[in-house]
Amino acid sequence: MLSTPAFTVPIDRDSEEPIYRQLIRHVRTQIEGGGLPAGTRLPASRDLARQLNISRISVVNAYAELRAEGFLSAHAGRGTFVAGDREASAVSTNGTHAMHPATTELPTSPDRSLREMLRLARKPGVINFSHGAPPIEFMPVSHLRDAINTVLDRDGSKALTYEVPEGFYPLRASVRDYVSALGIHCNPDQVLITGGTQQAIDLVVQAVLSEGDVLVTETPTYLGMIDIARIRRVQLHGIDMDDDGIRLDMLENYILDNRPRLIYVMPTFQNPTGRVMPMHRRRQLLNLASEYNVPILEDGVYNEFRFEGEGLPPLKALDEKGIVIHASGFTKTLLPGMRIGYIIVDSTHYERLLRVKQAADISTPGLNQRAIHLMLERGVLAKQLERNNRELRRRRDVALECANKHLPPGARWNTPQGGLYLWVELPKTGPTAAELYVSAIQMGVAYAIGNVFYGNGSGGSFRLRMNYAAQKPADIEEGFKRLGRAWRELACDYADMTKEPIL
Amino acid sequence: MLSTPAFTVPIDRDSEEPIYRQLIRHVRTQIEGGGLPAGTRLPASRDLARQLNISRISVVNAYAELRAEGFLSAHAGRGTFVAGDREASAVSTNGTHAMHPATTELPTSPDRSLREMLRLARKPGVINFSHGAPPIEFMPVSHLRDAINTVLDRDGSKALTYEVPEGFYPLRASVRDYVSALGIHCNPDQVLITGGTQQAIDLVVQAVLSEGDVLVTETPTYLGMIDIARIRRVQLHGIDMDDDGIRLDMLENYILDNRPRLIYVMPTFQNPTGRVMPMHRRRQLLNLASEYNVPILEDGVYNEFRFEGEGLPPLKALDEKGIVIHASGFTKTLLPGMRIGYIIVDSTHYERLLRVKQAADISTPGLNQRAIHLMLERGVLAKQLERNNRELRRRRDVALECANKHLPPGARWNTPQGGLYLWVELPKTGPTAAELYVSAIQMGVAYAIGNVFYGNGSGGSFRLRMNYAAQKPADIEEGFKRLGRAWRELACDYADMTKEPIL
Repeated sequence: MLSTPAFTVPIDRDSEEPIYRQLIRHVRTQIEGGGLPAGTRLPASRDLARQLNISRISVVNAYAELRAEGFLSAHAGRGTFVAGDREASAVSTNGTHAMHPATTELPTSPDRSLREMLRLARKPGVINFSHGAPPIEFMPVSHLRDAINTVLDRDGSKALTYEVPEGFYPLRASVRDYVSALGIHCNPDQVLITGGTQQAIDLVVQAVLSEGDVLVTETPTYLGMIDIARIRRVQLHGIDMDDDGIRLDMLENYILDNRPRLIYVMPTFQNPTGRVMPMHRRRQLLNLASEYNVPILEDGVYNEFRFEGEGLPPLKALDEKGIVIHASGFTKTLLPGMRIGYIIVDSTHYERLLRVKQAADISTPGLNQRAIHLMLERGVLAKQLERNNRELRRRRDVALECANKHLPPGARWNTPQGGLYLWVELPKTGPTAAELYVSAIQMGVAYAIGNVFYGNGSGGSFRLRMNYAAQKPADIEEGFKRLGRAWRELACDYADMTKEPIL
Repeated sequence: MLSTPAFTVPIDRDSEEPIYRQLIRHVRTQIEGGGLPAGTRLPASRDLARQLNISRISVVNAYAELRAEGFLSAHAGRGTFVAGDREASAVSTNGTHAMHPATTELPTSPDRSLREMLRLARKPGVINFSHGAPPIEFMPVSHLRDAINTVLDRDGSKALTYEVPEGFYPLRASVRDYVSALGIHCNPDQVLITGGTQQAIDLVVQAVLSEGDVLVTETPTYLGMIDIARIRRVQLHGIDMDDDGIRLDMLENYILDNRPRLIYVMPTFQNPTGRVMPMHRRRQLLNLASEYNVPILEDGVYNEFRFEGEGLPPLKALDEKGIVIHASGFTKTLLPGMRIGYIIVDSTHYERLLRVKQAADISTPGLNQRAIHLMLERGVLAKQLERNNRELRRRRDVALECANKHLPPGARWNTPQGGLYLWVELPKTGPTAAELYVSAIQMGVAYAIGNVFYGNGSGGSFRLRMNYAAQKPADIEEGFKRLGRAWRELACDYADMTKEPIL
């Protein structure tokens, strides 16, 4: 840290400019001119006021404004500092470490443009492949209605007061039964009910990581996790994938060098790539995580959307060391808007997660929990999965056929055995996915631009994620047709542009 | 930061003890013996491995285990350090600042004993004054049932897919109308729907504060905020209250010295004291916050529980500078378990809060939002408030009478004009509230022990918070009777103990 400089502010007491404004102006000029480098500690307000023979309130106000403008940063009990980028202020020029500035500003992010993209996708007439919702037409609305009415008859106002933070016990027991069919053996005391899978993974991040800690993910990865890392000020590091999922050689090297706190993976029908980690990779990943004692957060939200091929056990089912925290929910499979998710975790972590849950929102709505519990008991989910998966397979087939027919030559995509997404790569001779987006919207079709799934903001420029699950077959056909047309129009422009110089 | 010491670990390659274990043992002994003080940076694993001529994996494993045991702490890209208490490692012995260790352990807290207290309070036969729930008998169950069925008829699966993160627009418009009756004028774009008031205040803390930042509250204050501060690793500083609420002289001094990031207050029927901040104090607080540019988070959750006296405008209604963020909900007033709360905030903060909300749980359940919206449109809330407040007043009267009759001489309490709580002070000649608790449970009555509402864990030892709202009048009578009896029995023991020496 730099030593406190001697301040010689030429205060003009006869000026019409208030004293605190003069002080602001002076400090700002000094910082901009390099006279006060990043990391410099300024005198305490009390001292500077005495030194300049001005009132302390003037100094406090000046500091506050300079802080609001980003010139200064302050940390309780430690003082006020000249702000700088993190790099510059974390290690100051004499090589010793200063504390990092108290940045309450969230880092700038592509969130705003992302939401703009999603807003455009909702325009009437646009065939929207961009979001992550399951088919809407098959939702068990009347089953839900029956369940809610039954619960209200049975429990009355008990269903409408605070639920315990752990979740409604019978639902936790149903979750235990449900996951045991997937090979995960636990007891209800290891089940924590959450507000959807998003809250499940966010609670785990909060319980396990501090600001600045490192989280490792597959790259590309779930956009919601990228958001969480940004909001929680956690460093997200993506590890490349091969066809079998996250690359373990790269992961091991990264662990050795950086000691991450958590590994987040989606082993089955990964979002957005649709990849499935085969059995041997699952075991190797578990061994690696155990060896280095880095917990794994497994996101199982697409696990049951399999319409082809053999199912594989979740990591949690193979976990003998208690290194895996399993997060999933009944959002995609049953009813997204009821927001019922869960965490399965060994008892050592349970208490801490429970405290985080309680601070976050006390508990998940009891009526929603009780209704989902009844639906599970009545076997609605099993029937729903069967119906959904039959339809998903049909829509996947249509999507593959349409991709073949309408996407430009050179484009490539996966053949998913489950999940909701086609992960398309456009030929690099044409527009990027972002460049194509506006034309596509004008043509009446929307998709998710690939690079939003890359935590570092680069990569996947020619990728698009298409949710074939959310559209009827006729709309899938029409959507791909529009997309192909939009690409061709733009590709023509591209060809023209490369032929003729732009004036 | 201390410089890296030269390591001379006597590795015995012929020992049966694995090399990494030898390393662990050595480092641990050094730390415990003071040879490696807190804050010391250890050599990088690569370097130490080379130096000792052992494999890197041995070093990595040793460091990992020492870290798990709390002897070391690591921070990505900065190295591995000898852990210590925050104080010791934030400022190391040579007076320069080291970074704080990456503590992923949440600080130890009274949460576990608190939950144990709440668990005891739920024992059958116990008259429970400890929690924060409104009367359960008067919940509008059949109104809710009608609303849900109407929504499902009207919206079908649209009510069951993802809601937008801002919240269901018509509900946001209803909230705008509702708060405008309280004097808060805003538009629906300033309303963010949340999972209850708890999530509302948690989102604000997340959006405004970083780890280590300072949050100012009244003391005592809402337990849920103390939890949030602990989980978010935010420093909570409580400012004493007088009869008019938070003391502004102390607040101003504290702001001058510590530049807090946020002031959290509950101006009307403060939890747990039941105090109401009068108009002049409201205005002074706003002026102070504006002067120093510290945002106020106003918790309005008890605002409408007034059964006596004149209502006062919320701070947000008086806020001309946009310095107040208003959080409240329909949890206490209507249906706790539906978990519908809201934030009213000026547009500058809205975008950031929205991003935090989206990362936290994507959106609040759409069915719940739509049902509450319909109930508001149908005027259910107004009728519910009227009925609740009439009943609250009756129960308050019973509670006051019973307190007079059964509480020990010298005990004192407030006369609430609204809200749910009696804030009792026991005479200091007898047991503390915590000491009384087990006897009270045995006698069949539970309350909230006062000191849980003090962020620093001290203060309020003789205080108890009694929720008179949640019990029928006959149970209030019986509960106070039991409490008086429990106190007298224990007080006798106390008298005995002071008379006779304990052998």
